[in-house]
Amino acid sequence: MHRFEDMGFCKLDIDREERTGHPEVIFGLGKTADQTEAIFARLVEVHGRALVTRASPETAERITARFPEAVYDAPSRLIRYGSPRRSFKGTVMVVSGGTSDLPVAEEAAGTAEWMGCRVDRIYDVGVAGIDRLLAHRERIREAHVVIAVAGMEGALPSVVGGMVRRPVIAVPTSVGYGANLQGVTTLLAMLTSCASGLTVVNIDNGFGAAYHAAMILQLVAEADA
Amino acid sequence: MHRFEDMGFCKLDIDREERTGHPEVIFGLGKTADQTEAIFARLVEVHGRALVTRASPETAERITARFPEAVYDAPSRLIRYGSPRRSFKGTVMVVSGGTSDLPVAEEAAGTAEWMGCRVDRIYDVGVAGIDRLLAHRERIREAHVVIAVAGMEGALPSVVGGMVRRPVIAVPTSVGYGANLQGVTTLLAMLTSCASGLTVVNIDNGFGAAYHAAMILQLVAEADA
Amino acid sequence: MHRFEDMGFCKLDIDREERTGHPEVIFGLGKTADQTEAIFARLVEVHGRALVTRASPETAERITARFPEAVYDAPSRLIRYGSPRRSFKGTVMVVSGGTSDLPVAEEAAGTAEWMGCRVDRIYDVGVAGIDRLLAHRERIREAHVVIAVAGMEGALPSVVGGMVRRPVIAVPTSVGYGANLQGVTTLLAMLTSCASGLTVVNIDNGFGAAYHAAMILQLVAEADA
Amino acid sequence: MHRFEDMGFCKLDIDREERTGHPEVIFGLGKTADQTEAIFARLVEVHGRALVTRASPETAERITARFPEAVYDAPSRLIRYGSPRRSFKGTVMVVSGGTSDLPVAEEAAGTAEWMGCRVDRIYDVGVAGIDRLLAHRERIREAHVVIAVAGMEGALPSVVGGMVRRPVIAVPTSVGYGANLQGVTTLLAMLTSCASGLTVVNIDNGFGAAYHAAMILQLVAEADA
Amino acid sequence: MHRFEDMGFCKLDIDREERTGHPEVIFGLGKTADQTEAIFARLVEVHGRALVTRASPETAERITARFPEAVYDAPSRLIRYGSPRRSFKGTVMVVSGGTSDLPVAEEAAGTAEWMGCRVDRIYDVGVAGIDRLLAHRERIREAHVVIAVAGMEGALPSVVGGMVRRPVIAVPTSVGYGANLQGVTTLLAMLTSCASGLTVVNIDNGFGAAYHAAMILQLVAEADA
Amino acid sequence: MHRFEDMGFCKLDIDREERTGHPEVIFGLGKTADQTEAIFARLVEVHGRALVTRASPETAERITARFPEAVYDAPSRLIRYGSPRRSFKGTVMVVSGGTSDLPVAEEAAGTAEWMGCRVDRIYDVGVAGIDRLLAHRERIREAHVVIAVAGMEGALPSVVGGMVRRPVIAVPTSVGYGANLQGVTTLLAMLTSCASGLTVVNIDNGFGAAYHAAMILQLVAEADA
Amino acid sequence: MHRFEDMGFCKLDIDREERTGHPEVIFGLGKTADQTEAIFARLVEVHGRALVTRASPETAERITARFPEAVYDAPSRLIRYGSPRRSFKGTVMVVSGGTSDLPVAEEAAGTAEWMGCRVDRIYDVGVAGIDRLLAHRERIREAHVVIAVAGMEGALPSVVGGMVRRPVIAVPTSVGYGANLQGVTTLLAMLTSCASGLTVVNIDNGFGAAYHAAMILQLVAEADA
Amino acid sequence: MHRFEDMGFCKLDIDREERTGHPEVIFGLGKTADQTEAIFARLVEVHGRALVTRASPETAERITARFPEAVYDAPSRLIRYGSPRRSFKGTVMVVSGGTSDLPVAEEAAGTAEWMGCRVDRIYDVGVAGIDRLLAHRERIREAHVVIAVAGMEGALPSVVGGMVRRPVIAVPTSVGYGANLQGVTTLLAMLTSCASGLTVVNIDNGFGAAYHAAMILQLVAEADA
Repeated sequence: MHRFEDMGFCKLDIDREERTGHPEVIFGLGKTADQTEAIFARLVEVHGRALVTRASPETAERITARFPEAVYDAPSRLIRYGSPRRSFKGTVMVVSGGTSDLPVAEEAAGTAEWMGCRVDRIYDVGVAGIDRLLAHRERIREAHVVIAVAGMEGALPSVVGGMVRRPVIAVPTSVGYGANLQGVTTLLAMLTSCASGLTVVNIDNGFGAAYHAAMILQLVAEADA
Repeated sequence: MHRFEDMGFCKLDIDREERTGHPEVIFGLGKTADQTEAIFARLVEVHGRALVTRASPETAERITARFPEAVYDAPSRLIRYGSPRRSFKGTVMVVSGGTSDLPVAEEAAGTAEWMGCRVDRIYDVGVAGIDRLLAHRERIREAHVVIAVAGMEGALPSVVGGMVRRPVIAVPTSVGYGANLQGVTTLLAMLTSCASGLTVVNIDNGFGAAYHAAMILQLVAEADA
Repeated sequence: MHRFEDMGFCKLDIDREERTGHPEVIFGLGKTADQTEAIFARLVEVHGRALVTRASPETAERITARFPEAVYDAPSRLIRYGSPRRSFKGTVMVVSGGTSDLPVAEEAAGTAEWMGCRVDRIYDVGVAGIDRLLAHRERIREAHVVIAVAGMEGALPSVVGGMVRRPVIAVPTSVGYGANLQGVTTLLAMLTSCASGLTVVNIDNGFGAAYHAAMILQLVAEADA
Repeated sequence: MHRFEDMGFCKLDIDREERTGHPEVIFGLGKTADQTEAIFARLVEVHGRALVTRASPETAERITARFPEAVYDAPSRLIRYGSPRRSFKGTVMVVSGGTSDLPVAEEAAGTAEWMGCRVDRIYDVGVAGIDRLLAHRERIREAHVVIAVAGMEGALPSVVGGMVRRPVIAVPTSVGYGANLQGVTTLLAMLTSCASGLTVVNIDNGFGAAYHAAMILQLVAEADA
Repeated sequence: MHRFEDMGFCKLDIDREERTGHPEVIFGLGKTADQTEAIFARLVEVHGRALVTRASPETAERITARFPEAVYDAPSRLIRYGSPRRSFKGTVMVVSGGTSDLPVAEEAAGTAEWMGCRVDRIYDVGVAGIDRLLAHRERIREAHVVIAVAGMEGALPSVVGGMVRRPVIAVPTSVGYGANLQGVTTLLAMLTSCASGLTVVNIDNGFGAAYHAAMILQLVAEADA
Repeated sequence: MHRFEDMGFCKLDIDREERTGHPEVIFGLGKTADQTEAIFARLVEVHGRALVTRASPETAERITARFPEAVYDAPSRLIRYGSPRRSFKGTVMVVSGGTSDLPVAEEAAGTAEWMGCRVDRIYDVGVAGIDRLLAHRERIREAHVVIAVAGMEGALPSVVGGMVRRPVIAVPTSVGYGANLQGVTTLLAMLTSCASGLTVVNIDNGFGAAYHAAMILQLVAEADA
Repeated sequence: MHRFEDMGFCKLDIDREERTGHPEVIFGLGKTADQTEAIFARLVEVHGRALVTRASPETAERITARFPEAVYDAPSRLIRYGSPRRSFKGTVMVVSGGTSDLPVAEEAAGTAEWMGCRVDRIYDVGVAGIDRLLAHRERIREAHVVIAVAGMEGALPSVVGGMVRRPVIAVPTSVGYGANLQGVTTLLAMLTSCASGLTVVNIDNGFGAAYHAAMILQLVAEADA
Repeated sequence: MHRFEDMGFCKLDIDREERTGHPEVIFGLGKTADQTEAIFARLVEVHGRALVTRASPETAERITARFPEAVYDAPSRLIRYGSPRRSFKGTVMVVSGGTSDLPVAEEAAGTAEWMGCRVDRIYDVGVAGIDRLLAHRERIREAHVVIAVAGMEGALPSVVGGMVRRPVIAVPTSVGYGANLQGVTTLLAMLTSCASGLTVVNIDNGFGAAYHAAMILQLVAEADA
């Protein structure tokens, strides 16, 4: 039985860092600024670090006012505070298809960094101009884990997946229109990729992909020991 | 006002060749062998040539028995009879993603040939092994029109579309499973391609893509005159 | 290997005009005014012409202020700058079903003109008043390529497709309500058209249809040579 | 309160003819041959006539063996027995798009006849060969009610709806493939028709359209009195 | 061939009243106030009457300012002008399920009145309080045509359909939430009604139902002659 | 911690009767006859009674051969063995819309009986002949819990729900066609019912409704004590 | 026949309390403040108590100004007035998955209280931190009815359902994003739960679950008598 | 540029083992027995080992006849031949929800073993009997990677994901019915899991999950070096 701290509107999972290696992360969507601030403050107190995803500008303003060391990145909507307990060896590569995928790619990159990963970014290498991607083939092959972020038809992870000997995580984005169905088409396309071993997260879920990648690097670190 | 011939269960469009350059094609799905045979016989009589798509083996057997010159190709389910009135200059390139896309690719190729096009085929060059496609880049660039047939995530047309200065037609196939939704995912993904100017036809509709391609080559031929 | 220019947030495809005949076009949706302006300026510098689709009024104001020769058309949301390198022989016909389809029809027409096509427009000829369309039958038959723009049940391309001996591209629009599902019904209906050889682009994608049409006229021009 | 007769597995609505002008019709789908036969026999006894829709060949064989006057039409799957109590003045026009729509068109026509309507049929006049339809414009305009049966993109009712001053009922069929989604696309397209006042019934529901048409002719007959 | 008047942005169907018995009706959605006003003025000039559906308050204000006799009904968003050429004998009954269905019910009622029908209204008689409906059973049975408007599970038309010997038209509304899918569930439920002969129009399409009803009463009137 | 018995391919929940009042029930779908027989035998051994839902004829034959006291009901696909430990006071009313809903209604009725409930059945009282239902209004009002089984538009539970002061559970069936979408329309319609407090189970899940009803009667029994 | 009071825009069901045990509840969505106030006032007059769900702040302000005893709870959007006629014995447990589910959970809890139930609340016990739920296992098992409110994958009711011998009602919420499809995924997942006897209500329908729960406790109370 | 071997109907990726660590795997669905056998034979020749997924019994019989060392496992439809080049350190845990998920779980387990992983299996631990899962909590926590296979509401991966500090891959299965939509509901539910860092593969894609897991263990092995 793990310990939880009852904050009234929520039950804080304070044993989580011990259990999983990382403190609870605050999912900002659907929480009031009051709620987010209260949880944030308690996490900082207990763990010395905190991360908010999908933070609204209002929440960000409130938190950075109270915690001047907290950093808000508007495009990715992340609020980061504190340093990872340890840095993992190896690199998480974040590749993305187009300019509009940048916020999601940065959510992934920022989360991975906050969790202790070194991140390499290659953006705007969508498959309709395949040479942009091919120019970075070797650099991608050197990463330990690859996160491939793409909208529209979502083909980038398939091409990347066929190039590397490392786990690839696909992140669909909701940047298309019409038949894109707010990213549902991209999501389903990635799930039916012809590349082997690709795994997929929810639409725009850069956080989830980064968390999975960090779990992999944590395993490498702890399997080493 | 164009002329139609009333065959009871259908009204045959006998002016069609004059109007569009090609006789009516018989869509075999949902027609009985009797109906298909009757229309086939009348088309041969009027135009000297005929094409059936989606022919069942029973229909094929019936027609090839009566018309020994008719050729049935089982994988593509085409029955072809007669030669095109003229051969178009230029090449239709049919590229396909995987082994399972072959029947649809052949429906496209066979239709285009029957309509008077020269066809070049490059099969099994799906994007998860991108070098297979890149190896044929120049050959693809030399075609006049490109038909790109793919199932699963349907990324092939996007990559091809970014390589060429020619019209590209995408054909989704229904070879996937699960999240592929019998090809609907592939179809929607192709419609939201990041490549410019790609057009798309219905799932497994190799015939439609070939017809569009032949219309393009016919235009080239007639604009020349 | 083609050259790309790294602008930080994007990788500009400067070899594109040489490769495909036309410079990269800026898809305005999801780009900030800053990003669009920067790419626009660089494209003008390199190619002497540029096109933005789905431009917001803010972006349009910013660009026309800096580039007084740039022309913004509010209904179609196009910003056009410069003249096509060459004019193609032949005509692109743009027909549309109803008054509400006009913005998409104009996106198609404006794009085709910017790419060097002569455009003929016939608007508000939806099939529920079939004589409006029939009155222009001959004029439609004279075009080299037909773009048929329609919302609701999307029947216009089917009727047009049966009339002509030229390639027809169908563009569904999102003007309906209820069972129209924001144009998805129109899109799917066009894909299952009973007319032969119709190809289809994404909902409201007038640009894509025009691009495909221009590729066809470019082929005619280059096949002539 | 109306009377119902309890047959154990069903409650027969024997007051229905008095209430609505017509006896209950047996929907054959999902009923065993035993159940259908029992209801059929009782309806014949009470009303002197009966109709089964969607009858399986087995059920048809059973019933025609016992009731030699009963007539089974295999394509439409109707079993008809007896004559309508009265014949309505006026004509129900059944038009259909293609050869494959014939079974549904015949379900409509046969039902309307059994209910006392005179039926005029014009088949295979789909919109992709618009002159076939236009050739019958005047004949269609003379009908009292029009039932338009079509599959694929379902455009026929829209074109017909714009021609006539009479009620039009659209019947989608499930003959397409791929993006047709077993007729759902056709259904939704008809519901978003740009023609005014079109009403629609379920996919393949020729019976329902005919019933509505007969209700209209019954109103004409009874309003006359 | 019917005459159309080219107004630039639209082709006005001025023969329509002669052909169908009623002038063209303006569908306000997706038209600018300028466009609507121009068409309205021309229709008044030619026919002496006009109807706008889905009129925005801005458009309504513009038109009623210029045409003081025009009447705007805010809930139903109808602008009515002028009197029907003739009044049909018989009654259109409009029944509705709940308070929130009132705007759509009034669109139906107002349209039918403008077209020359006498309308009887029974509102808020949803099936979850079945006695409210049963209390009006005889009054409903006396109508010539019934329009049944309902949201949520859309059961009202099924119950009404089993009571009457007259044509029933079902109108689904978009008043539900969640599993209602903006009225799509209601629409599909009505299409699979167990009542015979029900026909259905698009979600919230009170106009379409009324137009069909008026066509029926027009038939009665003209069949009488 | 509860005890589970490891049978290799499954972990039998032998504490379940103590915990919930009833032994585990075997869901037959997707289990081989071997697997079902093995679990059945063990349940009989431990609890002296067993129930299989969705049993195939093969499985039924196997089990009734070995356990002659086991009773197989082909329409509902239930295999029942043994008597309930106690009989609950009160009645579960099972009402159904049409003849085709009978198998699902019987799955509900048979399950409820096996669990110790007294069951009252009223079948074929669909809303399109409302008097059939009204005739049993008082009998329905006397039940303790009502299970309303219906296909098509699924309106029966809404009408019943407005009549009674007892919990009502709606069971959608998959008997429709076309727009019914294999019962999904029925399911969604029931979920958006205008009757208060209706709860819904999965399509064709008569078992689930009966289980919920039995839990209610068990509560009544145990709250009495 | 039950009595209804005609208020013009609605027919008030004043016999409802006698028939079902509770007065009609006002569903605020889609009603104007005027309409809600008028019904509210009449209900207070007749029954001495009233409940509004989905009340907008405007409506709430209007009503609390006129009825100072009325209490508005902003998160759950309930307006409550008056006390239940009697209090039921037993407890309704409301458990919820996450902080964002609180408004729906409170709609359930507040409704149940207004109807006379004692409510126990356990919030933020989602399954991804299973020990939070397990810590309250005994307390949950002691309730008479359980309402399980959850968003995202909606797994909470399945876990709870396996723990208790009491009826469980699942309420999906619309708090997710992307593949959650505004709660439709949660709804469908709950309907296919592997726990026996779970019933489900519409997305965000806390009211419906509470009403069903109160019907159960009312049955217990009245079966006792 | 990698080498591909042209086999006519396919282009074999013979460099794949060098590039990714593993030879190409044959996806049996949609390939003829001839095609599968030819590729299998060539893979055995080049790499000394081969794997077929989704093999039909016919294909299995053909291959095991020719290659007696090949092993066919009917439930998982895998044909395995040869030993992995090296064995990875660490364990892949495969947990599954119910008996019906076994074939997919075994596809995952068998693939992982063929690729060189040690596999631990815990089956039939679905969340509706949560103690079955909790009993194995420590054993699951000791694995290096977890594959969680589940059908129905797909909750298992969420519960597991909250317990471990290792990467978790979720595999939805298609074992449900009705609202399960052939596994699509399960898939979408897993994608919206409230557990952090879960990644998901296509419905029934045990192979894909195992491949991703093996890539992780391969990284651990190679990062060690």
